[in-house]
Amino acid sequence: MRAITIPKPGDPDALVWAEVPDPVPGEGEVLVEVAASAVNGADVLQRRGFYDPPPGASPYPGLECSGRIVELGSGVAGWAVGDEVCALLSGGGYATRVAVPAGQLLPVPKGVGLVEAAGLPEVVSTVWSNVFQVAHLRPRETLLAHGGSSGIGTMAIQLAKAVGATVAVTAGSAEKLAACRELGADVLIDYREQDFVAALADATEGRGADVILDVVGAKYLDRNLDALAVNGRLVVIGMQGGAKAELNLGKLLAKRAAVAATSLRARPLDEKAAIVASVREHVWPLIESGVVRPVVDRVLPMAEAAEAHRLMESSGHIGKILLAV
Amino acid sequence: MRAITIPKPGDPDALVWAEVPDPVPGEGEVLVEVAASAVNGADVLQRRGFYDPPPGASPYPGLECSGRIVELGSGVAGWAVGDEVCALLSGGGYATRVAVPAGQLLPVPKGVGLVEAAGLPEVVSTVWSNVFQVAHLRPRETLLAHGGSSGIGTMAIQLAKAVGATVAVTAGSAEKLAACRELGADVLIDYREQDFVAALADATEGRGADVILDVVGAKYLDRNLDALAVNGRLVVIGMQGGAKAELNLGKLLAKRAAVAATSLRARPLDEKAAIVASVREHVWPLIESGVVRPVVDRVLPMAEAAEAHRLMESSGHIGKILLAV
Repeated sequence: MRAITIPKPGDPDALVWAEVPDPVPGEGEVLVEVAASAVNGADVLQRRGFYDPPPGASPYPGLECSGRIVELGSGVAGWAVGDEVCALLSGGGYATRVAVPAGQLLPVPKGVGLVEAAGLPEVVSTVWSNVFQVAHLRPRETLLAHGGSSGIGTMAIQLAKAVGATVAVTAGSAEKLAACRELGADVLIDYREQDFVAALADATEGRGADVILDVVGAKYLDRNLDALAVNGRLVVIGMQGGAKAELNLGKLLAKRAAVAATSLRARPLDEKAAIVASVREHVWPLIESGVVRPVVDRVLPMAEAAEAHRLMESSGHIGKILLAV
Repeated sequence: MRAITIPKPGDPDALVWAEVPDPVPGEGEVLVEVAASAVNGADVLQRRGFYDPPPGASPYPGLECSGRIVELGSGVAGWAVGDEVCALLSGGGYATRVAVPAGQLLPVPKGVGLVEAAGLPEVVSTVWSNVFQVAHLRPRETLLAHGGSSGIGTMAIQLAKAVGATVAVTAGSAEKLAACRELGADVLIDYREQDFVAALADATEGRGADVILDVVGAKYLDRNLDALAVNGRLVVIGMQGGAKAELNLGKLLAKRAAVAATSLRARPLDEKAAIVASVREHVWPLIESGVVRPVVDRVLPMAEAAEAHRLMESSGHIGKILLAV
């Protein structure tokens, strides 16, 4: 088969579309003929040599894909050759074939195209597990999503609105904020021009956010605490602004608040399967009814993964960048 | 009535047993004739001028008491004059009478003396709300409780053992650790002689603690992260070792862990009432069946509150120090 390989970590041209051995589905896995994959921030880190795949994972980038099942490993029930699926991966989506644990498969939702579905598993699983399972966002609460126009952000807006929450977002341009508004965001904050703590306080009569979904990390930690409401929950899923920062426990205690940090890729199979099962139960119906939709910036040929990474790194996109075979 | 007043913050002799006006029970409150109160760390901070009572609270120290109801305010149902009760207070327990919101009352558990019951509400509510409602300690998980021989610690050991968890404690002497063992603690760590991270790792085959109940704060923050298991939850309820420390979000993320901080005193009435109701439902039966018992270091006359504070500050006690009228 062919896959995007990384012979030597570096800039986007480090990505090489090459002939590699076919994967073999192990016990409890299926082999998927890939229709498309999608670009995630983690792929960029992996390309640069800063994020090795976890033990046992494919060496190729790509944390999600869509396609057709072409082979079943032993012990797989509930799936058949020919099924159109999308899947959460621990790597290997940038390829023509990938072996996937059956617990990480999802059917392509009704009303969503096969290619388009490639951009769903990672963002939906990330938003669902963090905003709802970890931070327990409830109806009438306020979510602040940093990077509202990203793949994660566009899904966070839609899912939070679907459960009846108020949504505030930060983004870096009027165009991105307009896209967030179209998806339902209530409070739009241009972080290049506004202090997000003050802007959120203005918009919530000083209450702040019950849940914050953050990809910045250290650089925002203290301001995120300031932006939290009493009983608020901050969930950090990225560290674009560094890992180490001073935490004021007095501030946290006065708000009876919590800081959690998670990643999806390193979770063991059973935890991933539990998240995917919960996504299928709770989020898939929202997608199939049209309440929540995939937001796709553009689709590039997989051989042009370097171009897709350049776009990702320049933050010029809104929603997901897909790579089609 | 008489109460322990603090005319001028300072050392234990700042506590003055004085004649003060009687409290008047407001709507939804009852007036309790106090049998005993108990000493908490917060009382010491308040005496030193570092912890003002929240708005609307009694100016006198004392976060819990036991006694008899002598008057019902308007709108109180389910309680009668003469009932023997103990109560969670936002202040005012160091007095002969105190007005208490009815939602913060608990019956004196069967098998527990009226004076002895004074030491239950604060520790039980603190341990229950933090270890179980915030951190969701589950059977077969491991709890690390710092200060295992304190009032909080002795209750945390018993409640965690009652649900089938493994309990590790830190304390500062062999005598204190022996008391923890008697209450059921499985792993005993003398923090004066051992590194608690290494000792806990040894005792758990490197897994660490699923839940840590911490009263130290900043000084222990990074080591507490080291001591957490994957999916671990650190709950900070005291800051004896300072409030500000570097948080390594990368470490938190790699463990998919969370840091929460809470206090009980500042919570609004409805949250306190919900905690007390949950305590009555879940913990009171364990006390009445003898599985969990109050641990009392000694009972002093309330007029000797200064002596009780000296004892508290020297950490010479095991369990609760009570002040009887």
